[in-house]
Amino acid sequence: MPIFKRVAIVGVGLIGGSLGLAIKGKKIAGKVIGVSRHQRTINFARKIGAIDEGSLELKAVKDADLLILAAPIETILKLSGQLSKLIKKDCIVTDVASTKKEIVSKLEKVFPNFVGAHPLAGSEKRGIDFAKKGLFNGSLCIITATGNTSLKAKNKVTFLWRKLGCRISTLSASEHDRIMAFVSHLPHIIAFSLIGAVPQKYLGFSASGLRDTTRIASSDALLWAEILLSNSNCPQAIEAFEKNLKQIKIAIKNKDRQVLAHLLESARRKRETIQ
Amino acid sequence: MPIFKRVAIVGVGLIGGSLGLAIKGKKIAGKVIGVSRHQRTINFARKIGAIDEGSLELKAVKDADLLILAAPIETILKLSGQLSKLIKKDCIVTDVASTKKEIVSKLEKVFPNFVGAHPLAGSEKRGIDFAKKGLFNGSLCIITATGNTSLKAKNKVTFLWRKLGCRISTLSASEHDRIMAFVSHLPHIIAFSLIGAVPQKYLGFSASGLRDTTRIASSDALLWAEILLSNSNCPQAIEAFEKNLKQIKIAIKNKDRQVLAHLLESARRKRETIQ
Repeated sequence: MPIFKRVAIVGVGLIGGSLGLAIKGKKIAGKVIGVSRHQRTINFARKIGAIDEGSLELKAVKDADLLILAAPIETILKLSGQLSKLIKKDCIVTDVASTKKEIVSKLEKVFPNFVGAHPLAGSEKRGIDFAKKGLFNGSLCIITATGNTSLKAKNKVTFLWRKLGCRISTLSASEHDRIMAFVSHLPHIIAFSLIGAVPQKYLGFSASGLRDTTRIASSDALLWAEILLSNSNCPQAIEAFEKNLKQIKIAIKNKDRQVLAHLLESARRKRETIQ
Repeated sequence: MPIFKRVAIVGVGLIGGSLGLAIKGKKIAGKVIGVSRHQRTINFARKIGAIDEGSLELKAVKDADLLILAAPIETILKLSGQLSKLIKKDCIVTDVASTKKEIVSKLEKVFPNFVGAHPLAGSEKRGIDFAKKGLFNGSLCIITATGNTSLKAKNKVTFLWRKLGCRISTLSASEHDRIMAFVSHLPHIIAFSLIGAVPQKYLGFSASGLRDTTRIASSDALLWAEILLSNSNCPQAIEAFEKNLKQIKIAIKNKDRQVLAHLLESARRKRETIQ
């Protein structure tokens, strides 16, 4: 028997669409409803079997027992008031946003059964066209809980992500954001800065090194501006990076081979631990 | 008929070994001789068919009509005097080093038939164990020529790399190094600095973004210390990067969404041009 009768997904893009595909594939819900601003998205999502029904209107969420907010952060915050009036009283609400502190503190005031989640899956691509059923399989999903989080909501959302093949880690929203500033948001900032620094006329000479280090600079710019601005730990992560870069720069300028080799070797060893 | 009777490769690692495999695969040489400091490397290279004969001694190069220097830069510079006394007078000499200005200026004084080359292929792996025949296929190979370069040597080396499946670009050694500072050496510096900045205890939360941006930080540290120190353009490339990063940092600190989105979007567009 499905654990949810009716799941509503607001925002049927890469993540929302992949969630629909995975939830339907695993028969976790009786029905999956998708809400999007674009009829094309709804049509495409239905065609690939990511949703059973689609709507341009928020009120389509009304009978859901699980509401998944998979739109960009600002959109979620903007719609949350309206959505809270439309859903059933006992509807569990979760999200998939890349930062958690701001969104959790705001949404748990609006939705009594809210629990935040962040699956560490995705890509530099965006939109329903790139949705795939196995996107979350083998990924880590971080569940954020606070003193106010309903245990039932937390358990159901945890169960959902486990069913989709995720390992689960539970963190506070603050811990989540501090960690993500370093392991996700900083690499994006760096990738955007790096490609910006390379003169256009040199790009024809690039090989796999530049391509890999800057792949995530193909990510959606507006979405990432929102993410970076919603994580107050980013400046601290940038400064830690700048400090490291400065050490390497000084060793290069001083032609200090021993210090340089030592700095690179410590970095190399650390990198080996994340094979 | 093979275009070279006898090719000697000094340094039978990832690049030297892959060269041996490709040269033998394409029947470009009558015989391929490998010189290494390690008997294990020679045995392994013979076993996989990267060389026909191997030796621990430099004098094995003596009858070659093409000598390929595929050892690290400092080793090449150190051995060049001895090698010049061992080779035939008309032996063509080339190298595969990642920086060119220093090595070309020194080696063309030692070898009358020297022409520098740099195939933009490789990986973060090192050693004969990772050698593969198709490593250069589809890559760009930069040939550096100076006013002193023998046209015959240049043509033969160009022909060699074309035969191995490379596109060819001819640059001065200075142009080569300036471009590589941005498209190859800077990404390595950034990758090493980035992984260094992430607290060890956060690494378990990393996803594909951090993995991709830091893949090349698994590269050999000593080799890269040598490369970075032999390219005088690195500090300039770092400073261009720092300037870009600072703009993004300021936009984040000022919570200036419009400026931040604009900076990220310009970077994203540039990145799209190197698909």
